[in-house]
Amino acid sequence: MNNRAFVFAERPQGMPDASTFRMVESPIPELKEGELLLRAIYLSVDPYMRGRLKQGRSYAAPVEIGQVMVGGVAARVVESKHAGYVADDVVIAYLGWQEYAVSDGKGLRKADPSIPVTAALGVLGITGLTAYFGLLDICDPKPGETVVVSGAAGAVGSIVGQIAKLKGCRVVGIAGGDDKAEWITSECGFDAAFNYKTTTDYAAALKELCPKGIDVYFDNVGGPITDAVLPQINTGARISICGQISQYNNAKPEMGPRLLSMLVVAWAKMQGFLVSDYASRFGPALEELKGWYLPGRIRNREDIVEGFENLPSAFIGLLKGENIGKRLVKA
Amino acid sequence: MNNRAFVFAERPQGMPDASTFRMVESPIPELKEGELLLRAIYLSVDPYMRGRLKQGRSYAAPVEIGQVMVGGVAARVVESKHAGYVADDVVIAYLGWQEYAVSDGKGLRKADPSIPVTAALGVLGITGLTAYFGLLDICDPKPGETVVVSGAAGAVGSIVGQIAKLKGCRVVGIAGGDDKAEWITSECGFDAAFNYKTTTDYAAALKELCPKGIDVYFDNVGGPITDAVLPQINTGARISICGQISQYNNAKPEMGPRLLSMLVVAWAKMQGFLVSDYASRFGPALEELKGWYLPGRIRNREDIVEGFENLPSAFIGLLKGENIGKRLVKA
Repeated sequence: MNNRAFVFAERPQGMPDASTFRMVESPIPELKEGELLLRAIYLSVDPYMRGRLKQGRSYAAPVEIGQVMVGGVAARVVESKHAGYVADDVVIAYLGWQEYAVSDGKGLRKADPSIPVTAALGVLGITGLTAYFGLLDICDPKPGETVVVSGAAGAVGSIVGQIAKLKGCRVVGIAGGDDKAEWITSECGFDAAFNYKTTTDYAAALKELCPKGIDVYFDNVGGPITDAVLPQINTGARISICGQISQYNNAKPEMGPRLLSMLVVAWAKMQGFLVSDYASRFGPALEELKGWYLPGRIRNREDIVEGFENLPSAFIGLLKGENIGKRLVKA
Repeated sequence: MNNRAFVFAERPQGMPDASTFRMVESPIPELKEGELLLRAIYLSVDPYMRGRLKQGRSYAAPVEIGQVMVGGVAARVVESKHAGYVADDVVIAYLGWQEYAVSDGKGLRKADPSIPVTAALGVLGITGLTAYFGLLDICDPKPGETVVVSGAAGAVGSIVGQIAKLKGCRVVGIAGGDDKAEWITSECGFDAAFNYKTTTDYAAALKELCPKGIDVYFDNVGGPITDAVLPQINTGARISICGQISQYNNAKPEMGPRLLSMLVVAWAKMQGFLVSDYASRFGPALEELKGWYLPGRIRNREDIVEGFENLPSAFIGLLKGENIGKRLVKA
């Protein structure tokens, strides 16, 4: 039996394309004592992965050409010579883009049987934790404050907005489609939203939807959306820079208006973060997220692409904003 | 006897000029019971004042046309009908650009007789406190870290660098003149400095002077200097946005490269601040600053312009970077 994997084939200059990844097949090695064989069930595709394809600095080492592409996976134990696992156990692990993986148990955690396995890769996994710490820890939203979320119909953004609603905030989402804007307002409870693809004057839209100014900005996108938000922040505003997806495919930094004076004027804070810095607090955070999720106080929409072979196109589509909610590939 | 004051005459579009302020004379009113008459000795001119000349949002209400220009002053009591003051007491107060002021005692604090009165407007006043909290509270510099300061030969920047040295950091200053770069290295103990006016490649200069990258950036200037710093920040970097003097005279935001992705990549923090937010901690901070200043562990250079009538030109010169250290006007 062969394993299939996607390796990183060619460093993209702009948007990744069909030449960026290459599928390779290789025999699955025999298990040694203490090892187990895993088969991917769901693979997560996430915007941060674009950063791993860049040479040079990022928050993690870049993926090297020829290396299996990295990523979080829900997998089932096919066979186990490891004392801690038996066949059919489900685990969550950072196995990368491959159908099968041999593991010695390091870095695996058993999936919580009380939640859907897909949720463990999304709202009750790194996605939800990113929303949780990026909003609550960095921005500390207070009841009655106005929270603006860009990339609001994405996996992280949609959860950010829902947590902000639970905290009593007015929540305004910016998303790339009428269907997305409709979903976050009607299903996720955002107070308002606009589609940046059909809105010409973002500043005017924000002014209308945020009559008391903006206290918290959770940014997944950057670029002209951030340009419109910054001049409308209130004094003491907190800005979480979770992602800058509008910029990831630029070979050189795009030009935009210099707006750091707004941080002086509003004595505001702007912060990037690494979710794994909060690892010691993941347990209680996941409990709280689960407590919101199970009774339906937080909705988790999944956008599932069928077929392992569709990983590259699912990822590229994500970078282009095709997805609503959490995109996963079902292997 | 008449009072002389500078009122705000015309809102500047770019750099303030001779038409921005107008001197007015008016009779000094008779003192009532509970009042005292003050005569300015030294008046502080500071970059933040440019922000007060703008219409619209700033961290404080804008100065209105016809209003006496605001500012911190050291003044002597000429005559007192106030129980708390006698003639010749020296006070520090936010009296604005006028020679004489009648006060009911509100907002005055007596000058500390153990320090020079000019220091009370600088290193041991709001200037020093701005450096202290902007560096220590926002950036928390650790021994061995590299701290870059822009506007490094200014009143705040020169103190920031010296505090960072006391904390065991490598300190690199960026200043607008060879004399300034020379002063901060030879007198203030900065490890290195460069003159941005004669350096063509800021990024290369920083790379050479900060071989271990940049952990802390204290920014007074913004613009192309910040553009060069951001790509060289280390993971976990802290950036204090104290001022953006390169941008204050622009009618519209200047264009520059979008660099917020660096905050994602380096999970860095960038923060503006208002020194008066720290008011409850001014006492102990001033004690610590005094403990560094009196034995000469922190040098305070003063750039004193003679003559009340020279206030506008002293201020405009400050915005143009004429000063080294703390600029004051002697009335």
